[in-house]
Amino acid sequence: MKAFSREIRYGMVGGGIGSFIGPIHRTALQMLSPKIRLVSANFSTRKEICDQTAEEVGLDLSRSYYDYETMAKAEAKRPAGERADFIIVVTPNRLHFSVSKLFLENGFHVFCEKPLTRTSAEAEILQKIATDRKLLFGVMYGYTGYPMIKEARRLVHEGALGKIRKVFVEYAQSWLTDPIELEGQKQAAWRTNPSESGGSLSMGDIGSHCENMVSYVSGLQIKEISGELSSFVDGRILDDDAMVLLKFVGGASGILFASQVLTGELNHFRLRIYGDKAGLRWDQMDPERLEILEKDGTIKILSRGAGSLSKWVGKTSYLPAGHPEGVIEAFSNHYAAFISKILHPNEKESDFPGIEEGVRGMKFIESVLKSSKSNQKWTELS
Amino acid sequence: MKAFSREIRYGMVGGGIGSFIGPIHRTALQMLSPKIRLVSANFSTRKEICDQTAEEVGLDLSRSYYDYETMAKAEAKRPAGERADFIIVVTPNRLHFSVSKLFLENGFHVFCEKPLTRTSAEAEILQKIATDRKLLFGVMYGYTGYPMIKEARRLVHEGALGKIRKVFVEYAQSWLTDPIELEGQKQAAWRTNPSESGGSLSMGDIGSHCENMVSYVSGLQIKEISGELSSFVDGRILDDDAMVLLKFVGGASGILFASQVLTGELNHFRLRIYGDKAGLRWDQMDPERLEILEKDGTIKILSRGAGSLSKWVGKTSYLPAGHPEGVIEAFSNHYAAFISKILHPNEKESDFPGIEEGVRGMKFIESVLKSSKSNQKWTELS
Amino acid sequence: MKAFSREIRYGMVGGGIGSFIGPIHRTALQMLSPKIRLVSANFSTRKEICDQTAEEVGLDLSRSYYDYETMAKAEAKRPAGERADFIIVVTPNRLHFSVSKLFLENGFHVFCEKPLTRTSAEAEILQKIATDRKLLFGVMYGYTGYPMIKEARRLVHEGALGKIRKVFVEYAQSWLTDPIELEGQKQAAWRTNPSESGGSLSMGDIGSHCENMVSYVSGLQIKEISGELSSFVDGRILDDDAMVLLKFVGGASGILFASQVLTGELNHFRLRIYGDKAGLRWDQMDPERLEILEKDGTIKILSRGAGSLSKWVGKTSYLPAGHPEGVIEAFSNHYAAFISKILHPNEKESDFPGIEEGVRGMKFIESVLKSSKSNQKWTELS
Amino acid sequence: MKAFSREIRYGMVGGGIGSFIGPIHRTALQMLSPKIRLVSANFSTRKEICDQTAEEVGLDLSRSYYDYETMAKAEAKRPAGERADFIIVVTPNRLHFSVSKLFLENGFHVFCEKPLTRTSAEAEILQKIATDRKLLFGVMYGYTGYPMIKEARRLVHEGALGKIRKVFVEYAQSWLTDPIELEGQKQAAWRTNPSESGGSLSMGDIGSHCENMVSYVSGLQIKEISGELSSFVDGRILDDDAMVLLKFVGGASGILFASQVLTGELNHFRLRIYGDKAGLRWDQMDPERLEILEKDGTIKILSRGAGSLSKWVGKTSYLPAGHPEGVIEAFSNHYAAFISKILHPNEKESDFPGIEEGVRGMKFIESVLKSSKSNQKWTELS
Repeated sequence: MKAFSREIRYGMVGGGIGSFIGPIHRTALQMLSPKIRLVSANFSTRKEICDQTAEEVGLDLSRSYYDYETMAKAEAKRPAGERADFIIVVTPNRLHFSVSKLFLENGFHVFCEKPLTRTSAEAEILQKIATDRKLLFGVMYGYTGYPMIKEARRLVHEGALGKIRKVFVEYAQSWLTDPIELEGQKQAAWRTNPSESGGSLSMGDIGSHCENMVSYVSGLQIKEISGELSSFVDGRILDDDAMVLLKFVGGASGILFASQVLTGELNHFRLRIYGDKAGLRWDQMDPERLEILEKDGTIKILSRGAGSLSKWVGKTSYLPAGHPEGVIEAFSNHYAAFISKILHPNEKESDFPGIEEGVRGMKFIESVLKSSKSNQKWTELS
Repeated sequence: MKAFSREIRYGMVGGGIGSFIGPIHRTALQMLSPKIRLVSANFSTRKEICDQTAEEVGLDLSRSYYDYETMAKAEAKRPAGERADFIIVVTPNRLHFSVSKLFLENGFHVFCEKPLTRTSAEAEILQKIATDRKLLFGVMYGYTGYPMIKEARRLVHEGALGKIRKVFVEYAQSWLTDPIELEGQKQAAWRTNPSESGGSLSMGDIGSHCENMVSYVSGLQIKEISGELSSFVDGRILDDDAMVLLKFVGGASGILFASQVLTGELNHFRLRIYGDKAGLRWDQMDPERLEILEKDGTIKILSRGAGSLSKWVGKTSYLPAGHPEGVIEAFSNHYAAFISKILHPNEKESDFPGIEEGVRGMKFIESVLKSSKSNQKWTELS
Repeated sequence: MKAFSREIRYGMVGGGIGSFIGPIHRTALQMLSPKIRLVSANFSTRKEICDQTAEEVGLDLSRSYYDYETMAKAEAKRPAGERADFIIVVTPNRLHFSVSKLFLENGFHVFCEKPLTRTSAEAEILQKIATDRKLLFGVMYGYTGYPMIKEARRLVHEGALGKIRKVFVEYAQSWLTDPIELEGQKQAAWRTNPSESGGSLSMGDIGSHCENMVSYVSGLQIKEISGELSSFVDGRILDDDAMVLLKFVGGASGILFASQVLTGELNHFRLRIYGDKAGLRWDQMDPERLEILEKDGTIKILSRGAGSLSKWVGKTSYLPAGHPEGVIEAFSNHYAAFISKILHPNEKESDFPGIEEGVRGMKFIESVLKSSKSNQKWTELS
Repeated sequence: MKAFSREIRYGMVGGGIGSFIGPIHRTALQMLSPKIRLVSANFSTRKEICDQTAEEVGLDLSRSYYDYETMAKAEAKRPAGERADFIIVVTPNRLHFSVSKLFLENGFHVFCEKPLTRTSAEAEILQKIATDRKLLFGVMYGYTGYPMIKEARRLVHEGALGKIRKVFVEYAQSWLTDPIELEGQKQAAWRTNPSESGGSLSMGDIGSHCENMVSYVSGLQIKEISGELSSFVDGRILDDDAMVLLKFVGGASGILFASQVLTGELNHFRLRIYGDKAGLRWDQMDPERLEILEKDGTIKILSRGAGSLSKWVGKTSYLPAGHPEGVIEAFSNHYAAFISKILHPNEKESDFPGIEEGVRGMKFIESVLKSSKSNQKWTELS
């Protein structure tokens, strides 16, 4: 639902049939405009998945590759009018670094799933390449694409809450309550495997969203943390639960928790911020509303699309108020901003999560891992 | 997010830049599969809108027409591999009949916005042509495409509520609270104009959704009604408010109301059904949940995507529970069923709203108009 | 939680052990002040219930009577410092008239449960006696005692909603879904029996609350109605379900429904009012909040006890915001106003439901009964 | 709304006009039964407040004392039929210890507000005296008196949630957002004053409820904590904000926070517990409902008074489902259990919060204070 001045082309690594997040990225782009086209891909390490996925999404088999190295080499040679404008990386975490690095080195803009890499050192390497080569690099923290999150950020920025004192962010899921990784659930299998997933499951998979959301909306910088990672399921190596106390530069403090063993919770990601003038509350499972808590005890519920919202937010909202948009539209918003920056490189404000957020996210995860192993109460953020 | 065995092509009449519903139809199809393509259109009666819209959606100008008659004639001549599989009609109500009729007569399947026509006589003509020519005809009552509505229908059908006694359906909007049709709001201008809109504004625009929703979920047939149409805004000819008592075949009764002057209500469409064993409640502004009211006072909240739902519903649900889908996905579900029936004409069960629903809807609207003018309490449904 | 200048004494007819509403009245008075004392009663037509109840509530047996005629005669002779200030009537409906009449004739103020009588003729007789003898007469429509209802009334009165256009009021219960009157449930037994209960069950028991609530908050006067009463349970003589269209003097319209066969609904009494400036919503099962729907789509949730509420409401609110008060406090508020008027007869504003409300309620019930039997669409309110 | 076999008499220290909690205790007793009577009191350290309060509550001035020492001495001499059955202590925290101690020493049962004392050493002295003298000692953690909290405890105890893994408890208030203690707000003045209040404001005032609620419902024992106390308002000596990580014996963990500077939050006290079979959620501002989160994603909402609840809970529930009870009824429930134990000392199960809870609460507060000052991550509960 955006107008673009020309056809936009993208490639994808990962996202074959059976992938959870790959189709969400593709759909987010499809719904944005029919002028956006998937032109090349390496969907999987398995040939039959590559072929089946290409067939399903209508990708010409000549540009469906069986490995990403071949894809990078071949696609880099394409002429400007055929070549992908950017590459989406939706592999398991393990491959984020090497795939992103190769495509950057071949001159492609990249949009990669979070967490960016497995270590902050890797993330900083990507950052350096992208900076040196003046390439765009998006990191898909999809939830900050919701219009009401943008409204929340604007309200905080404009001082509607006053000086921020407290921040609470939590991400509650149920799906790893049982050891489903032993029962053939593929999403669980790679995520619970350190060599595929990285050092922390709960932080990499969902806690990183918490850190990103807090930073995006509050504009605050985390100074020190006190974290505890746990695993509640027998035989699981990586943590499935994290609880973290936060201190921010400037005096605010707060709590972050992310758990995948909270039985019955679906995908319950919530944010609360309190300043000395007002508070706000938001819930990802009811994403079109934003609650403002006023000092006199009145709660104001703002709705996406309603007349009271800022013009700025309007650009990320497609349907009239009361006609629900979903999480795919949130992804679309990030892609719309990314593509706009590709088309208009001199654009000043550009609202998609970038490589800095990706690097910061990795440092946060590492700090939580460090704190969790430490007997010391507070750990400075690296 | 559906796999189709071949490319699907469609044409569109109406839906030019400035249209509310046209982009929703296109986006619903785009997000369904990149293999679905808009191949021809007459977007508007204004040439510049036709051109601009074609440019925005990437339609080849050679198949962007300035009137639908020319489009019908030219497109009918196209060979099978180029020709549109179906035509979407998203014009103001006035044109639904003539556009649909012409494309049916030229051998196209049609998917038309509701209300189907301006009179039931027109609707029955379309029904006859479609039947005679064995063409598919969908009518876009988009809200019955929500997965939780399908779950509700299944629960009622399987007897989970027992014998149905009471049905309450309501559609509350605010947007016509003021005479915005006099201030240049185009959506309001044609809708409040009888020659564009038909005999009833509130029933045509939103009340028809109520009737369709009740019929779809409850499976009940309306027998008698007692209705009252009113206009609350000075100078408005058509009604902006309807209240209707309902009696169903078999003894159930209920209330339907649809109003566009309920200040502050966004798009609040709600359904409640009570049987002698249990009740259910659903709210379009929170569409992913369905409340089951049990006899012992327990309320069970079912969520789209959660493990407790039926397999059958799963086919219309794309994302895991807790990852919000929106109303566009509901439209997509109708199109997925419609396209599936095009591809597999012998398919037995086919779950999209068809011409019968469209005809029934027109008869309902006419009955409410008749009842509203009558001094008699109950009016039999024609 | 009110300060009174002297001890307050009351008597009670009805409300013996097994009564639902009697203990609520007593508790409402007890919690108001320890200076309020029950001094005489005829709790039941059964002697053993009289005795047991007197024992339970600590009433001196010398003033616990076995019939109300004896009680009236004996108590009327008591000296001023002993005599009850007022008499509460909480018998089945059948006796409301004769008990109230007798105590009025003996010079007592009376507070009677709703519905006031079985016919409006009886109600008008009580009205005449009370007026002639300058006696106070309260009718317990308990729900208008909630502070947020008082705030709603004030907001409407001060024009916050603009000119009222639409009113929706509904009362949904489940408890008569099955024929429990045949299974020894005493509350159901008398209520479903016309000679005990009056002409309409659903209207007398809960629909009368709807009429009273609408009138109290909106200040509007009902002009015409179109009603339908039904019974959904085999063998039940009286209606257990009512649906009523409303037209008000001045042009507003609306819908009232009251049903006791809505499986799974507990005691779901809701009010919605929409004017041309704003709307409001209130739900008895969440009585401490009031939603204001603003024209720009913002919903403001006001809370009892919060700083934003009017001073006037504060007098009916005891606890700080967020410390839930219940329905008994609503009853207490009515009694506080009634007692204040007894103590200060020249008080100008006096906010408890009186005999006019009781008479009006009976006329409304009779009009619904008349309309339900009529083939004519609209029936003028008698 | 309880039947007692004889008149019950109580005395009160504190609770004069202007007190917040005193009237709540009195009202909770008044509403329980008219046979419960306040017979003696020292309402305040100020004579005029003593007199005015006695007048307001109808206490005979001969038993309204100007200091508690005189009261204790005089009342201890009263004969059995006149003497108070128990004494309620609702002074500022500073006096809890000395008042409770004196009345215990004079042979009275005591019910004291929380936090029990200012130090655990004081609490243990009271415990020893009560135990030695076989006197009952209640500590008013009022919120565990809610019926749905009792249902929650039963469900956990019976294994409905499986093995408990995670516990989240939070208490969010707004009222100390500004330095109102400097503006003459008396409730704030003594609470923010260490010599009146004790070592921690946020923990003493509201955090102690969190600890008690978690222990009561989960049955778990806290093993280690990691806490941080902060003050967000300039010039405030005591903390107004606490965040605490929890580890329980047996492997569960969780988070507790209590803050009085969360702008716009009224009295938002929430509990969430997750086991390996199911989860539960409860919110004090909607206290009549309890959410059970089932493994398949279904949420079951249980309501006070509904048929699905256990018989055991029924004893603490007065009104039918859907007729809201409030927080005063929760206090009443504790008093009902306490009085029942006075009347029937051999009663085995007795469900009111006692001296053990009070002592444990003081140890918890002291541990949080210790942890907050420590650089070590985990502090064992003393």
